[in-house]
Amino acid sequence: MLDWHGKGLSVMEMSHRSDDYVAIAEKAEQDLRDLLSVPSNYKVLFLQGGASQQFAEIPLNLLPENGTADYIETGIWSKKAIEEARRFGSVNVAASAKPYDYLAIPGQNEWKLTSNAAYVHYASNETIGGLQFDWVPETGDVPLVVDMSSDILSRPIDVSQYGLIYAGAQKNIGPSGLVVVIVREDLLGRARSSCPTMLDYKVSADNGSMYNTPATYSWYLSGLVFEWLKEQGGVDAMEQRNRAKKDRLYGFIDSSEFYTNPISHNARSWMNVPFRLADERLDKAFLAGADARGLLNLKGHRSVGGMRASIYNALGLEAVEALVAYMAEFEKEHG
Amino acid sequence: MLDWHGKGLSVMEMSHRSDDYVAIAEKAEQDLRDLLSVPSNYKVLFLQGGASQQFAEIPLNLLPENGTADYIETGIWSKKAIEEARRFGSVNVAASAKPYDYLAIPGQNEWKLTSNAAYVHYASNETIGGLQFDWVPETGDVPLVVDMSSDILSRPIDVSQYGLIYAGAQKNIGPSGLVVVIVREDLLGRARSSCPTMLDYKVSADNGSMYNTPATYSWYLSGLVFEWLKEQGGVDAMEQRNRAKKDRLYGFIDSSEFYTNPISHNARSWMNVPFRLADERLDKAFLAGADARGLLNLKGHRSVGGMRASIYNALGLEAVEALVAYMAEFEKEHG
Repeated sequence: MLDWHGKGLSVMEMSHRSDDYVAIAEKAEQDLRDLLSVPSNYKVLFLQGGASQQFAEIPLNLLPENGTADYIETGIWSKKAIEEARRFGSVNVAASAKPYDYLAIPGQNEWKLTSNAAYVHYASNETIGGLQFDWVPETGDVPLVVDMSSDILSRPIDVSQYGLIYAGAQKNIGPSGLVVVIVREDLLGRARSSCPTMLDYKVSADNGSMYNTPATYSWYLSGLVFEWLKEQGGVDAMEQRNRAKKDRLYGFIDSSEFYTNPISHNARSWMNVPFRLADERLDKAFLAGADARGLLNLKGHRSVGGMRASIYNALGLEAVEALVAYMAEFEKEHG
Repeated sequence: MLDWHGKGLSVMEMSHRSDDYVAIAEKAEQDLRDLLSVPSNYKVLFLQGGASQQFAEIPLNLLPENGTADYIETGIWSKKAIEEARRFGSVNVAASAKPYDYLAIPGQNEWKLTSNAAYVHYASNETIGGLQFDWVPETGDVPLVVDMSSDILSRPIDVSQYGLIYAGAQKNIGPSGLVVVIVREDLLGRARSSCPTMLDYKVSADNGSMYNTPATYSWYLSGLVFEWLKEQGGVDAMEQRNRAKKDRLYGFIDSSEFYTNPISHNARSWMNVPFRLADERLDKAFLAGADARGLLNLKGHRSVGGMRASIYNALGLEAVEALVAYMAEFEKEHG
């Protein structure tokens, strides 16, 4: 942290134009490319502002003033993306999980896509509802745009199925304040004249994400995560690890009469497992006991209540085992 | 770094909504308010995208579609701000250092300000040219907007003279990827309808800079810098320290016949000291010798050549003494 390779300075202090830092940045990009087998006709950008800024950046870059973009609504994040995109043009909500009370994702046969849409946008995982696509929409020549903030690198994907993938770093990549964008080259150079320079993908791509000083330390730390992922065996190994974790947790919940998760099995998130206790008056006691065991942040989002276990890449099976053991113990005591 | 107050997790891993993190964020803001005596009718925002994103954010928030903004041009950063603002409306360059070959800042008696300008923008310090205002423009009721990226916290300022102050963190505040904005409350709520939500100051202010996940770790580290500054005696102590540093370096350069800095004395930067050797064929040898002594990053910006010593807050007088000793030695050998 304080002395990089004996140079007497931290990566945090390096100029982003220095040879040392450029090497760090390029290695991080290459490792991410290796992990996801990113084809050579895609740019990988390391930007700022999080996924929320992408909600504006995507229409400003890809939605012509007179065009229409299709959006799929499966929860709070895709809803936010829709609200922001509406500020910049015509948005068609081609499908929504609302009629299913956000417990299932409508199949593509139910979608009402626009012919000649500028793009189709969806969120592959909804962190609050705990709803995740286990399939990739088929949109033909219309670019598919996906918010993968909460499940990127959790299992293999085929990048060539997408026009643009974006992901805020803070779940599976690295520290907050960084957002990764993987964009097919033919989608660059379409930004509106009113798009701020810093939000124009082509400017970022042409400058290797260094049009201005990037979030250097976050980029570096993300590179360390990519190295770690490669050492672990890459996204194939992550898929095994994450499958074992979610199977253990959902398996326990389904076998219990005290805990419930109502999501359709094929739409259950591998990353965020919301669950409820049979009696919500026990929620407080459950959370207090969990905290005392170092099982932190299990309270569900204030908008939905209940519990939520977020089991991102960084978490090992042993943490899920500890949670299940505690849940079983609590059920025995209060069930 | 890895275990915050015995909680078993790093600040980097904390939810930005957790009590622990909110306390860290609020303390950082309060310490910055204390350091700069920020009046209570100003909001302090911790944002992303650097000063370059502010170049767009400022007109999107403060320049009405039919209004005009005045800009003062004193070097590369103010020029970039002007170019970006022109994309969003009418810009009047009310004064420029160009006729002075960027060696002096035109006095306000030479400025051609617009009556009823939306605001007047200037950069208090130009890092590449080494040009710094040692006075504050007087703009009456027209809000004064200043890019203080490279000299904030280096000496006392009177915040009430400004409508908006912004500063990329990576010089005197903390790690890159964070930009601090100090804005008078009456300037909030004026954003254009086409302003991305993430770029609307009012949205950031209303949400305590947490409309989405902020750059949590950079914010935390900046807070540690604010604590350190307070321990050092605040900006008054910094002024003394920085004055001693720049007096030592400019004093040596002026007394030498081998090194030169051509900037008008009252416009010389306290933070960035560009200088030239009598014979530029010696530049390479000078830089190699400096590197060998751990005196890093002395090469001038590629656009101007020569040398540049950046002597931000973090650098002590002893580092300037080491540089002067080396410069004297080099002059003796090659002069």
